[in-house]
Amino acid sequence: MLYLDYLASTPLLPQVQKDMQKAWEETYANPSSNHTCGLKAAELIDQCKETIADEIGAYPSEIIFTSGATEANNFAIKGLAFALGKTNKHIVTSAIEHKCVLEICSFLETQGFEVTYVKPTADGIVTTEAVAAAIRPDTILVSIMHVNNELGTINPIQEIGELCLEKDIAFHTDAAQSFKKLPIDVLDMNLHAMSVSAHKFGGPKGIGFCFLRDAKTTTVEPLIHGAGQQMGLRGGTVATPLIVGLNSAVQNYQYDEALYKVIKVDLIKQLQSSGTCFKINGINALPNVMNLRFFDSKMVNDILSSQKYCVSQGSACSSKEITPSHVLQAIGLNAPEARNCIRLSFSDESVINLFKDFELKDTYVNAAYTT
Amino acid sequence: MLYLDYLASTPLLPQVQKDMQKAWEETYANPSSNHTCGLKAAELIDQCKETIADEIGAYPSEIIFTSGATEANNFAIKGLAFALGKTNKHIVTSAIEHKCVLEICSFLETQGFEVTYVKPTADGIVTTEAVAAAIRPDTILVSIMHVNNELGTINPIQEIGELCLEKDIAFHTDAAQSFKKLPIDVLDMNLHAMSVSAHKFGGPKGIGFCFLRDAKTTTVEPLIHGAGQQMGLRGGTVATPLIVGLNSAVQNYQYDEALYKVIKVDLIKQLQSSGTCFKINGINALPNVMNLRFFDSKMVNDILSSQKYCVSQGSACSSKEITPSHVLQAIGLNAPEARNCIRLSFSDESVINLFKDFELKDTYVNAAYTT
Repeated sequence: MLYLDYLASTPLLPQVQKDMQKAWEETYANPSSNHTCGLKAAELIDQCKETIADEIGAYPSEIIFTSGATEANNFAIKGLAFALGKTNKHIVTSAIEHKCVLEICSFLETQGFEVTYVKPTADGIVTTEAVAAAIRPDTILVSIMHVNNELGTINPIQEIGELCLEKDIAFHTDAAQSFKKLPIDVLDMNLHAMSVSAHKFGGPKGIGFCFLRDAKTTTVEPLIHGAGQQMGLRGGTVATPLIVGLNSAVQNYQYDEALYKVIKVDLIKQLQSSGTCFKINGINALPNVMNLRFFDSKMVNDILSSQKYCVSQGSACSSKEITPSHVLQAIGLNAPEARNCIRLSFSDESVINLFKDFELKDTYVNAAYTT
Repeated sequence: MLYLDYLASTPLLPQVQKDMQKAWEETYANPSSNHTCGLKAAELIDQCKETIADEIGAYPSEIIFTSGATEANNFAIKGLAFALGKTNKHIVTSAIEHKCVLEICSFLETQGFEVTYVKPTADGIVTTEAVAAAIRPDTILVSIMHVNNELGTINPIQEIGELCLEKDIAFHTDAAQSFKKLPIDVLDMNLHAMSVSAHKFGGPKGIGFCFLRDAKTTTVEPLIHGAGQQMGLRGGTVATPLIVGLNSAVQNYQYDEALYKVIKVDLIKQLQSSGTCFKINGINALPNVMNLRFFDSKMVNDILSSQKYCVSQGSACSSKEITPSHVLQAIGLNAPEARNCIRLSFSDESVINLFKDFELKDTYVNAAYTT
């Protein structure tokens, strides 16, 4: 079984497992408790917060732990929308955001907000120009993802940040697929909020964080009202061992860009020489991601139903849905074309013989190919 | 160091640690993925859901996993309030709910809802009569906790459930402190929703669930909008290893009521014979919980700042606050009296010599005592 779905989720790094295990065993007190055990847990959390904040050029007080990127997106987008949208209620996002962002926006539309969904280019990029064209005098918030979760394409976040700074509009990015893979500096990028999930880079499921600028003095309403935890911005017992795991992943995850680039080129060559007819969706994608469109639906079905490969068609979240991917449709593919696409995401050279060993290869030898 | 704060949080059970570790190692795929690894994770979650539902007489489809009881309270109370409160907007809760419930209600008040906070008896019980007196023709929701988190007192949930059934009002209970300690049957108790947290009974922090009656067909709006996970009711990658841990705690946690009763009687006797002046707050509390009011503030401060005991003054969540406990004030204590209270919660006989070995005992010999 070859796991090729690292964009959907990653295995825990061994060091993360080890660090978490120690925390599960030793740091079980409630970090809100005012006794020695509780204070020890709180101190551990503060240390984690500091190293995580350092990673993105933020203050520790700007890190709000959540159950993952989806909760962080909900907290940031709804929170900023309600806080800033007293009179002006226009939001700009893109048509290729993660499904949860689209659901949040659709909810906000029922609450009197108006949302413009910027179309990506045919190559899967949300350009600064397209965002600029969507901004109106009553725009209060722009939310554009850093890396698309189906294509791996990288959006020009820094440029969009500059645009938002110039127009004095709050800017949020969903960095679930980019954090620890691309450099991120919240100041350089003029970010007001950013969402991150630990299980996308070797950390545990069930934890993530939201960077929120000036969180201490913000007027953002909590999504989860609680008993004063996390400066009153996110209720619920702070899950020390999961935060230790998140922090350990931040410290230990290695994204080997150079290696992945070599592997990707090799895989494409293999696929070409196998004679398989295919096309790559999106340009300038993360080097460990390939979204491939094939021309033979039987082959795609065979791969997807194979016991040999764990690959997704689009994102994990919508992989059980019958409707084709909204991302692929947004870049211009029709429904049958979208259904012929497969997303591969890998972590090391275990994939290097993927297409050399391609079981279905012979069927397609001598077919034309396009890249 | 004697840990006496099991109501704030419990250590992981060794079996839970073991089961979780296996899941962290083996079941890392995203359970929403449609490939073999993803389907295996989804199957594991379904199995957990079934045994958890069995525990409370619910259907598996009525279990919504959350990051804990605080999120579950937010989802259930806000969700039911907004779903049911289109015209009528009156909610009944109690003055001694967990802080997060009071915060949720306070938020709902800003959204046009009216909330009645039922006063408990001086013994810390929210009676059915008091709830009945608070119900109005426009009441849409009653939310009363099962066991109070500061006193350990048990509310008559079944009777309140019957009252709500009779009046046709939705009924939610925060069962964070009662689940696995007292029998719960959601049908017998006429519950529409219930909140549970794993780390209160030997499970991991960062996971819990909300029972929501007829969740499949409910009109409740999600708190965390997502990509269709959990029937569209709670977004975010479902954290398989944490759910395995939650389920393992449900299977393996033992609440030794008989033993705790013996220990409690013994502790009270020891305290009496030490001559320490004290009073027990609340009656009919969980047998492993004692909320004690002392008459000597220096002694209380010495205990609280001691390196020997991990005990809380009130709940963990508010233990760092300067204002005295809202629960103790609600049962009639003034601020200085409330500041002289200590909550002890224990798990086994390690506590049996607590007051025999009471360092401060001699100071108070010959003082009068009241129970």
